[in-house]
Amino acid sequence: MRPAAAAVGQPLDAVDTPALVIELDAFERNLRTLADSVKGRPVRVRAHAKTHKCPEIGKRQVVMGAVGVCCQKVSEAEAMVEGGIGDVLVSNEVVGAPKIERLAALARRARVGVCVDHPDNVAALAASGATLDVYIELEVGMGRCGVPSGEPVLALARGIASHRNLRFAGLQAYHGRAQHIRSTADRRAAIEGAARAVRVTEELLNKHGIECPIVTGAGSGTYMLEVENGAWNEIQPGSYIFMDVDYGRNEWAAPLPRFEQSLFVLTTVMSTPAPSRAIVDAGLKASSIDSGMPTVWQRDGYNYAKASDEHGLVEIGASAKAPRLGEKLLLVPGHCDPTVNLYDWYVCVRDGVVEHVWPITARGALL
Amino acid sequence: MRPAAAAVGQPLDAVDTPALVIELDAFERNLRTLADSVKGRPVRVRAHAKTHKCPEIGKRQVVMGAVGVCCQKVSEAEAMVEGGIGDVLVSNEVVGAPKIERLAALARRARVGVCVDHPDNVAALAASGATLDVYIELEVGMGRCGVPSGEPVLALARGIASHRNLRFAGLQAYHGRAQHIRSTADRRAAIEGAARAVRVTEELLNKHGIECPIVTGAGSGTYMLEVENGAWNEIQPGSYIFMDVDYGRNEWAAPLPRFEQSLFVLTTVMSTPAPSRAIVDAGLKASSIDSGMPTVWQRDGYNYAKASDEHGLVEIGASAKAPRLGEKLLLVPGHCDPTVNLYDWYVCVRDGVVEHVWPITARGALL
Repeated sequence: MRPAAAAVGQPLDAVDTPALVIELDAFERNLRTLADSVKGRPVRVRAHAKTHKCPEIGKRQVVMGAVGVCCQKVSEAEAMVEGGIGDVLVSNEVVGAPKIERLAALARRARVGVCVDHPDNVAALAASGATLDVYIELEVGMGRCGVPSGEPVLALARGIASHRNLRFAGLQAYHGRAQHIRSTADRRAAIEGAARAVRVTEELLNKHGIECPIVTGAGSGTYMLEVENGAWNEIQPGSYIFMDVDYGRNEWAAPLPRFEQSLFVLTTVMSTPAPSRAIVDAGLKASSIDSGMPTVWQRDGYNYAKASDEHGLVEIGASAKAPRLGEKLLLVPGHCDPTVNLYDWYVCVRDGVVEHVWPITARGALL
Repeated sequence: MRPAAAAVGQPLDAVDTPALVIELDAFERNLRTLADSVKGRPVRVRAHAKTHKCPEIGKRQVVMGAVGVCCQKVSEAEAMVEGGIGDVLVSNEVVGAPKIERLAALARRARVGVCVDHPDNVAALAASGATLDVYIELEVGMGRCGVPSGEPVLALARGIASHRNLRFAGLQAYHGRAQHIRSTADRRAAIEGAARAVRVTEELLNKHGIECPIVTGAGSGTYMLEVENGAWNEIQPGSYIFMDVDYGRNEWAAPLPRFEQSLFVLTTVMSTPAPSRAIVDAGLKASSIDSGMPTVWQRDGYNYAKASDEHGLVEIGASAKAPRLGEKLLLVPGHCDPTVNLYDWYVCVRDGVVEHVWPITARGALL
């Protein structure tokens, strides 16, 4: 692990770049906004740790009422448990002997859930001997993993129930694509489609005497639509703590609250080849461009137009003041999750001063 | 740092996924092919370590004749020196007090070069007191850092020469964009344009009594064009050791030799939702998609069509045999450099058995 990216007490402007910065006031308001938005609703929060990969943040989510976290990888779940989180769902299929062994070892130290969509995988999990909450992943519009509603779910649920160490915990029904549909009305339509698949499946299970304790899913871009719909009783928001350029392009309207941008990449102007162009030291190894370029925070007329591996090209509009060599800028990452995965530390800032440095202990946790 | 991604002696098929794999035979042939291609030419090799970020590889490049390595970041250069490389060029501008301090400290332990394109930066380097080889970055078609040929170069060279601790080492003339132009003829035209800028600049410097010892530049996609042109006496190839999908799309014709694909992402089929579709456990956090999707190695009819954070969607053609759950596939990364930056270890394989695990010590070296 690399040394801490800043020193507590340092002014932000003295922090070397590129650095991944959390504005603590905005971050903490986001934590509270989510908690307030579901207060009194029959739903529990299982925050998604794939976004932050940091137990320091996971613990704060639990303190704000989350039942635990979810992860996409076993090695992420290990990092969360090692950091003090006692209840982790791997909201994904875990396939292959080495990973299932690790999952089983983890389940001796914490409450662990996992998703399945194949009977062979159920058999492999059962053979591990681990006590696991097993969720069936339902295909609800992602076109990715999961089984369609109907008979396949019934067969899997019976398979799970036939093993003493596995507990059928419910359905994983996550519509990831819906998170990034721009209009609230279209997002609502997508979630209603997912909800129909959930209800049909629950009815089938109930008809055959199988109880479905939890229906889990719902990301930051839609979760209040799932809550209002009522088919879910657990939500998995992740990005709400940080936000990014892509989420910023969504329409944010009731019932969804507005979250604030709290995650930034601090960068330095390292070359000023022309008044209309500045080169910054944060390229695509410092801010993931899979969902588009970062933007420059609170600088009218500045356009981060192009990223190469270690450089970013910022176009300076004719009416904007060009930056000086060495000047620092804040970028808003195009996509928060893969950007976080490029860093070892968060530099947490309040009123322009570093208050915490938090290690991103699940950075690079691919297994 | 994460634990080693495999055990020496393990069969490749037992390695947990996603894993970053080097096929050692192909890798070693690439090292030799490059060395052979410049044998007897009046040019030295300074291999680019931004690609591999691994001293184990840098040392092998030096053993094969490289004078040292180049890096894009001071922290990368530190990792190389710590790993046993004695001559490092930061082929980039180094701006800001903390980085210049680190560069100065490094220059007390190794021969260190750096690029400049601004007089204020020359002054800051001089003030550090460090003994540095200083190269002027010439703008030769990248539209990024660098000064145009002519007076600005002369002023910078004089500025450098005015400081006792700085040595004017020559010109950095790297045409990165040319590396990815598909046809050899078009790449040659781009390099000839860059060469004209180099020659005009050298003539100007010589006319004013300033010697220009080294002209450095030239990446894997063009370097023999620079060598044949004659305006360069140092080349900086990086990707030739690994190759990737994007480089594979170039025309490879004389004078450039053909390099082999040696870098792969090992991935597991984690879901088989339909005969026409498989989901693998390597998404965009396991293989960078900035230059396009990875491809599936030696599987006709398999098309890696879409990456999400932790999943890849592989379309299976109608005439291809669908993979079974748990089957492993090798992916060719779309772009090698940022893919390497996602991993902590290379799993180095010969004849299907792990022979080395090499730590990627400059992974995440952003400063």
